[in-house]
Amino acid sequence: MSEPTLLVLAADPPPRLGRLTGRARVVYADEQSLAAQLPDADVLLVWDFTSDAVRLAWPGEGPRPRWVHTPSAGVDRLLCPELIASDTVLTNARGVFEEPIAEYVAALVLAMAKDLTGTLELQRQRRWRHREGLRVAGTRATVVGAGPIGRAVARSLEALGVTVAVVGRTARTGIHGTEDLDPLLSRADWVVCAAPLTEATRGMFDKRRFGLMQPSARFINVGRGPLVVEDDLVAALKKRWIAGAALDVFVSEPLSPDNALWDVPGLIVSPHMSGDTVGWRDRLGEQFVELYELWMAGKPLLNVVDKKRGYVPMHD
Amino acid sequence: MSEPTLLVLAADPPPRLGRLTGRARVVYADEQSLAAQLPDADVLLVWDFTSDAVRLAWPGEGPRPRWVHTPSAGVDRLLCPELIASDTVLTNARGVFEEPIAEYVAALVLAMAKDLTGTLELQRQRRWRHREGLRVAGTRATVVGAGPIGRAVARSLEALGVTVAVVGRTARTGIHGTEDLDPLLSRADWVVCAAPLTEATRGMFDKRRFGLMQPSARFINVGRGPLVVEDDLVAALKKRWIAGAALDVFVSEPLSPDNALWDVPGLIVSPHMSGDTVGWRDRLGEQFVELYELWMAGKPLLNVVDKKRGYVPMHD
Repeated sequence: MSEPTLLVLAADPPPRLGRLTGRARVVYADEQSLAAQLPDADVLLVWDFTSDAVRLAWPGEGPRPRWVHTPSAGVDRLLCPELIASDTVLTNARGVFEEPIAEYVAALVLAMAKDLTGTLELQRQRRWRHREGLRVAGTRATVVGAGPIGRAVARSLEALGVTVAVVGRTARTGIHGTEDLDPLLSRADWVVCAAPLTEATRGMFDKRRFGLMQPSARFINVGRGPLVVEDDLVAALKKRWIAGAALDVFVSEPLSPDNALWDVPGLIVSPHMSGDTVGWRDRLGEQFVELYELWMAGKPLLNVVDKKRGYVPMHD
Repeated sequence: MSEPTLLVLAADPPPRLGRLTGRARVVYADEQSLAAQLPDADVLLVWDFTSDAVRLAWPGEGPRPRWVHTPSAGVDRLLCPELIASDTVLTNARGVFEEPIAEYVAALVLAMAKDLTGTLELQRQRRWRHREGLRVAGTRATVVGAGPIGRAVARSLEALGVTVAVVGRTARTGIHGTEDLDPLLSRADWVVCAAPLTEATRGMFDKRRFGLMQPSARFINVGRGPLVVEDDLVAALKKRWIAGAALDVFVSEPLSPDNALWDVPGLIVSPHMSGDTVGWRDRLGEQFVELYELWMAGKPLLNVVDKKRGYVPMHD
């Protein structure tokens, strides 16, 4: 039996792939060579998951990989009509990023409540200026996105004593449907966006929705940049419709040095790092090897994306 | 029956004292007038609790207040041999600062784990530089101080998934004694100082103890400044004996603009604000009124300091 061809879109070899020696013929692609190599691949590992190359190179017809894996939570960069229509299975990195992102959101909430930004700025100025912090316990958060990341964020904030409402596409036990979104935004101290980027969610945080929020509210986006209309967020901060925001994701990444978002008062900008903790690449490599072993054994894959919805559905 | 004389060391009237109208003759003192007014006072409220005036003005003999209340957790600024030896009852603000300080420590731990300081500095420079954060869950903390603040800090870190060891003066159920301090420092990712300042604890964080800590460890002081030998901490940071530190309290407060601590790499400096959240002065005023009502009714006071030990003992 010949080894399946595993095509890897990566500049550098991912960790752990050596474990597949004898079970996969590993071939590397870059963005330029990808289109020519796709027809010969049985499996595609999109290790460089911030690339748009797969969506651009995916063949409309003819041979193509039977399975595509992306070591990311979001799959928005991959999905094109031809991939959605094909019988190719798409899997993601569910299980790796949830808890780190939840800690990151807790860090932002606490830092905003205690004005750590102000403290560090005053320290630079060598100025002793006592201020009063906010209590986090007893506040309310609305988490938008009811997948594993949104749920981990909710658990993490609840552990701090925050009352959390989670909003998903449809109402379920413990989850609000989108029909509750606007009223839940209007009574939240913290609005956390952890939704997948789909045609239904693109631009959902716009002028109207920032206008619903309390003047004391803070907005945090750890989902995808285009969920937010960035100019509307900037205007909301400048008009003090809301008290602060933190963006870890942006419409255009990396953010260019001349982007106006870098110095909007009340806005914390971080470089898409919320889920990335020491060892994350090793964990992503291990996860792929485990999925590959299931696939080789003919067993059902885990983390299978519903390509029409654009995310892995929860089973509840 | 004549009203007791309530002497208040304060520049501005504290909130809630109006509730004592008809039950107390309220007289205000400043640092200069305090010594002359003390002999006529039944009760002293040290509203300006950062003042050293009480310790300096306390009468060695003759009439003196029967009860002194400080709206702070620490009582180190008040205690002098004459007050310790007298039968004057001393009470503190136990119950007000614990949970805010615990949130503040959680904010520092998470901010250090996620390098929020680096993120804000890079944002100022308009530089996109992805870094890997640390997971907080699964790390170990040693909390020094087994009073209500240390215990609240422990609960708050445990809620983040941290394994916490609490060290007090003597070993009890769930609390390590000082004989375990050194080994617990040497295996901690986070060392949090929340101890009272007494002759036994002054300068306890010195060159030797920083030398025991891991190079990856972070040190946080929310207790009192003189618990730390500041020059030794600076040296430990500069030699990279430890990875970072945050001080909310200092040997000399407010920190003067020319103090070298303001710009030590890896050190976060904040202006003694960890326990002070919106409404804290109201809560301190309410707490004093409640204690005053107990005292007027001849009932036992709460939060009574063991003046020889220098803190309110825990009943376990």
